Amino acid sequence: MFSITIEPRFSETDALGHINNTVLPVWFEQARTPIFEFFTPDLDIAEWELILAKIDVSFLGQIYYGKAVEIKTFIQSIGRSSFVVYHQAWQEGLKVAEGTAVLVNFDHRTQKSKHLNDSIRASLELHLFTE
Amino acid sequence: MFSITIEPRFSETDALGHINNTVLPVWFEQARTPIFEFFTPDLDIAEWELILAKIDVSFLGQIYYGKAVEIKTFIQSIGRSSFVVYHQAWQEGLKVAEGTAVLVNFDHRTQKSKHLNDSIRASLELHLFTE
Amino acid sequence: MFSITIEPRFSETDALGHINNTVLPVWFEQARTPIFEFFTPDLDIAEWELILAKIDVSFLGQIYYGKAVEIKTFIQSIGRSSFVVYHQAWQEGLKVAEGTAVLVNFDHRTQKSKHLNDSIRASLELHLFTE
Amino acid sequence: MFSITIEPRFSETDALGHINNTVLPVWFEQARTPIFEFFTPDLDIAEWELILAKIDVSFLGQIYYGKAVEIKTFIQSIGRSSFVVYHQAWQEGLKVAEGTAVLVNFDHRTQKSKHLNDSIRASLELHLFTE
Repeated sequence: MFSITIEPRFSETDALGHINNTVLPVWFEQARTPIFEFFTPDLDIAEWELILAKIDVSFLGQIYYGKAVEIKTFIQSIGRSSFVVYHQAWQEGLKVAEGTAVLVNFDHRTQKSKHLNDSIRASLELHLFTE
Repeated sequence: MFSITIEPRFSETDALGHINNTVLPVWFEQARTPIFEFFTPDLDIAEWELILAKIDVSFLGQIYYGKAVEIKTFIQSIGRSSFVVYHQAWQEGLKVAEGTAVLVNFDHRTQKSKHLNDSIRASLELHLFTE
Repeated sequence: MFSITIEPRFSETDALGHINNTVLPVWFEQARTPIFEFFTPDLDIAEWELILAKIDVSFLGQIYYGKAVEIKTFIQSIGRSSFVVYHQAWQEGLKVAEGTAVLVNFDHRTQKSKHLNDSIRASLELHLFTE
Repeated sequence: MFSITIEPRFSETDALGHINNTVLPVWFEQARTPIFEFFTPDLDIAEWELILAKIDVSFLGQIYYGKAVEIKTFIQSIGRSSFVVYHQAWQEGLKVAEGTAVLVNFDHRTQKSKHLNDSIRASLELHLFTE
């Protein structure tokens, strides 16, 4: 499991008084940074090896400004060239949102997906979600 | 079907050279404005009657800066107090992304969901997606 | 003068009930698109010839969701290799914000500024602000 | 002086390969959180006592993804009901951006500015910028 702590930004609230729903995909992408580093250790974008195929987010409760949010990130499943990341957002002891992201190992030069290598697969397996 | 045209913003690109994935939920929310008006005709946020329960987005192709994007929005299904919106993003004749949003008719004062009334239901039915 | 019309997005509001201040630089950047096209007619980012040196924004009134905003854009002054853009945001007949942006003609390959050519200078002069 | 550390987000980059200029006002607003707490200790937005009158940002160098940014925040000057905040953004030992924000002590109920009280003034003075 990976964990980051987010201080919600004032600009991330909306007129209903809470964090706007469009912010969760941003936080979840940030939470994938250690996974990005499996593929591109120095985060050099010229060497990027991932594309995003799909995301979903379920909104379970209101998220408030002024209180820290923890994003817990797991690997949900691993395929041949793709894998699914599972995120949870927690605030004050409540799970306020969760969602997944399907990532594909991708060669930007050939514009084709490529198999996950054994080393990366082993790294991902260490973070598999278990109930 | 509802349609809006978006001019992608420079600030919506990312370092891979295309529109960042986190922008699609923003565009899709904007595309729901005419649906918001079914519930709150003058868009007065103090009278808001909707909450968002879930979103998903599938990324089907790269989205480029400098070319218009059309967002086509449909109603996918209608329940008792909730309904599902279906969005497609098109650029230069290609469907580059699609996704859904589950919206719940909600009374912010009592913090409870409430049934869709007949008038709103009829309005939504006019926009049902048919293959 | 250039003009674009913006429909404020729900995600651009903040918990004080109006459009968040950080949105104005985004709208103003979008309003500079026709100026970007003077330098890069097809908006091909690989051929980009501008960098931003400075921005300022003055907030003159609250900006509301649900009502269109017009961004009027002018050229305020023209130097040898740089120029100043002046933006105004209008909503319902009121000037609600204004600001400037200092842009520099820049060669991303040599990482050096370069003189504005006569053709671009003439294009910019057509849009000079006059009280 | 106040200091926060920001991990730049992938979604904050743009197609030129660096952090987009519109992100700096967002980071600087986040860096003002401890100042917001002088006015509203629990950050309860219903009790907000500030409005933003003006911002400016100077872009001094490219800001890269994958490397932490420190935002140093000072008070530049204090007036009767307003004050000026001064921010610097540092990455890898270089000052990459700086800017100011003019904040006004404001009563959202009467929609009028109000004098800074002595306690807040003393708190602000502790953070005055000195070369």
